[in-house]
Amino acid sequence: MVSSTDNKQMHLFAMPMGSGAHVASWRHPLASGRAALSPAHYLEIGRIAERGLFDAVFFADAQGYRAMPGRDAFSRLSSLSIDPVTMLGSLAMATSRVGLVATLSTSYNEPFSVARRMATLDFMSGGRAGWNVVTAQSENEAHNFGREAHYGHDERYARASEFVDVARGLWDTWADDAVVMDREDGRFFDPDKVNALRHEGDFFKVEGPLTTGRPPQGHPVVVQAGSSPQGLDLAARQADAVFTSHPTRESAVAFYNDLKARVVAAGRPADSLRILTAIQPTVAETEAEAKAIAQELNELIHPDVALAQLSMQFGGFDFSPYDLDGPLPHVPDNIVSRGSQQRIVEYAAKEGLSLVQIARYVAAGRTSHTIAGTGAQVADLLADWFAAGAADGFVIAAPISPVMFERFVDLVVPELQKRGLFRTEYAGETLRDHLGLERPAAHQTGIEPEIWQQPRA
Amino acid sequence: MVSSTDNKQMHLFAMPMGSGAHVASWRHPLASGRAALSPAHYLEIGRIAERGLFDAVFFADAQGYRAMPGRDAFSRLSSLSIDPVTMLGSLAMATSRVGLVATLSTSYNEPFSVARRMATLDFMSGGRAGWNVVTAQSENEAHNFGREAHYGHDERYARASEFVDVARGLWDTWADDAVVMDREDGRFFDPDKVNALRHEGDFFKVEGPLTTGRPPQGHPVVVQAGSSPQGLDLAARQADAVFTSHPTRESAVAFYNDLKARVVAAGRPADSLRILTAIQPTVAETEAEAKAIAQELNELIHPDVALAQLSMQFGGFDFSPYDLDGPLPHVPDNIVSRGSQQRIVEYAAKEGLSLVQIARYVAAGRTSHTIAGTGAQVADLLADWFAAGAADGFVIAAPISPVMFERFVDLVVPELQKRGLFRTEYAGETLRDHLGLERPAAHQTGIEPEIWQQPRA
Repeated sequence: MVSSTDNKQMHLFAMPMGSGAHVASWRHPLASGRAALSPAHYLEIGRIAERGLFDAVFFADAQGYRAMPGRDAFSRLSSLSIDPVTMLGSLAMATSRVGLVATLSTSYNEPFSVARRMATLDFMSGGRAGWNVVTAQSENEAHNFGREAHYGHDERYARASEFVDVARGLWDTWADDAVVMDREDGRFFDPDKVNALRHEGDFFKVEGPLTTGRPPQGHPVVVQAGSSPQGLDLAARQADAVFTSHPTRESAVAFYNDLKARVVAAGRPADSLRILTAIQPTVAETEAEAKAIAQELNELIHPDVALAQLSMQFGGFDFSPYDLDGPLPHVPDNIVSRGSQQRIVEYAAKEGLSLVQIARYVAAGRTSHTIAGTGAQVADLLADWFAAGAADGFVIAAPISPVMFERFVDLVVPELQKRGLFRTEYAGETLRDHLGLERPAAHQTGIEPEIWQQPRA
Repeated sequence: MVSSTDNKQMHLFAMPMGSGAHVASWRHPLASGRAALSPAHYLEIGRIAERGLFDAVFFADAQGYRAMPGRDAFSRLSSLSIDPVTMLGSLAMATSRVGLVATLSTSYNEPFSVARRMATLDFMSGGRAGWNVVTAQSENEAHNFGREAHYGHDERYARASEFVDVARGLWDTWADDAVVMDREDGRFFDPDKVNALRHEGDFFKVEGPLTTGRPPQGHPVVVQAGSSPQGLDLAARQADAVFTSHPTRESAVAFYNDLKARVVAAGRPADSLRILTAIQPTVAETEAEAKAIAQELNELIHPDVALAQLSMQFGGFDFSPYDLDGPLPHVPDNIVSRGSQQRIVEYAAKEGLSLVQIARYVAAGRTSHTIAGTGAQVADLLADWFAAGAADGFVIAAPISPVMFERFVDLVVPELQKRGLFRTEYAGETLRDHLGLERPAAHQTGIEPEIWQQPRA
């Protein structure tokens, strides 16, 4: 499946993020009327991504909210989100080729349930399912699931790693040819080819087998984000694709090389893992128009929202008493501890930004690298990063969804195709095909399931 | 919404049960080629049910297997099942009016996750979601979720009752008019109309709010089965519809009257709960043909499967050493303790059935009342039970799916319509509309959510 040709073309994921990646997207005139409040919104994104030959649509998710200082600021956010797997079950019917990636946390889910839901999505979509493995980090999510606090970092990742192993183990409980469906003989499956998992680890104890049979892709594609040492270890050992984001090409290249080396060190071929980095492109027919839209978006960030986001960056420091049009006030040194905070202070000083301007700059930066320009300009950026070895492809975070996906498909994709950097048709049927990833063989345990043992003699 | 006319017409659910309700369905020539192994199988059932103006399709489910004595018998069962909510996400796109009911257990799920998944299904389907609340009873399911044994009966129901309260509470965390989406003012929602739930009970501690906004139906329809005293209490207090099954019209009438009295005693109007009872109809153009199909199905039950099912009815007693064509062997009195076992022994004696015949009779009885006949004969039965006050409607368990749904729609539904007993078109849009159930108002807590409180001063 993986050929050298594949590696000369980039992969693309479409990441909608509700009404768009930009925090004020829903207020912009280009945003669709009811945005993320209508099922049609999601279906349209899927159809656009498929028309643009994207590898997949990619839905971020959390089962709760990140806290935000201030009820007023919170009420200005487009804050609705729905269960991505159920929604992608619908999208599977509205599309026929594009991959469908859902985020499911390993913190407040159980591996049997996640393995079964992803297998179902893979089944209903004919092999197009992907699972973005995340660990939950907000207090609210913990509180929605009966916990006082969210898991600590090390525990989260240890749990995530075991969780993925269990899911992959469950996907292997039925051999590919286990179901024989021999009507004459009355044999539905070959019991030699259905095993228990009987996993017993630090976090989970799971018997199996799964009830779905083996998923069409063998294993749905496992995507991972998170760039802590534990996150990178998990990715190197267990992921099929990694979603990352970087402010500069250089940091992306460094990340790429480090992670590929870790993959090889884990005993896997370097190209068994695809690395995709996030880009937030504002696209228009002219550069001036694109920059005007980006500017409009930033000005639509309500000052309350901007100050709240700034406050979150500065450990809860309250900026509201200060003059919006004055300079960034002095924040006590004991709060400006992290490099990212220092960079904000320096950037505001260098550019001579007012409080509201630097606050909006911070609030707009929900995903890393942004660009506003023509189709050719955006294609130049992607081509440059791709040639530099910054990524195997990109996660396109449309600042306004779906309009900026539409423009990307109409203006950027043809540019990439012209340069031979992107497919002109889908070569395969499954998400693994699109990504050029092997279909994994089933590693079975050989353990006889408990379910057909005599309950009593 | 509820009018006296509604109550003169019956409600119908279609219950597919994989390749059919009959244990040997997948072996019958009328079964579709790849049966439950193809996504098209599920979509077809939905489309047939909608063509027949059914209130809903109803998918039973479990996250594991019921144990069965003997690996050989087990391998003869059509044993695959997929996650019903994800699959119904797809069915929502293949249909536009029929209700979509998914079974989700309260034993190995969390209320926040279930409330959110059902809200998503309700959203994607435009108000057609239903949740069949069950408690898990198999050891294998417990073992798939890290427990040594499944919950005891009382604990299961106490947990289920609290679980439903939490889900309904979460569906009320956003008022119907909470989302204002005022672009000019930059206000997405009215913070006075979004509340925390802050539930703290014996089993769950759940903060909220839900992330989905209020579901289109207010609350997706809550269906409940289970006829223990605790199950009936739960139904009387919390359910919108009850799924039951009875061997005779008389026991159905008694159940109906008892449960409706409990509903009234719980302070609710009697018709705020719909009671549907299961019927397994084998339908054909002639009675002879219908009976021949039923007979064929029974003969397709492999003796290993029949004996295993009989053994499960008799506490694991091993019937395999006995002559299949001889009489039912004497089972020790200490095993024949329950009334249902005594009835099997008596029935075999009265009808002069051989061991394999009585075993097949038991194995075929997966759902309660069966009938084989013409469309008019099946309509007669439903009309008779309905007139007698046995049910508000029926759960049609097609012995072979989808063919027997198709025949039911083509041969039985027109008979019911001719007699004025069933709708000739959908009057409303939502599952609540079809069932003639009110849309519940949101009972909000008035508690300010933690998510917009200042994390640090």
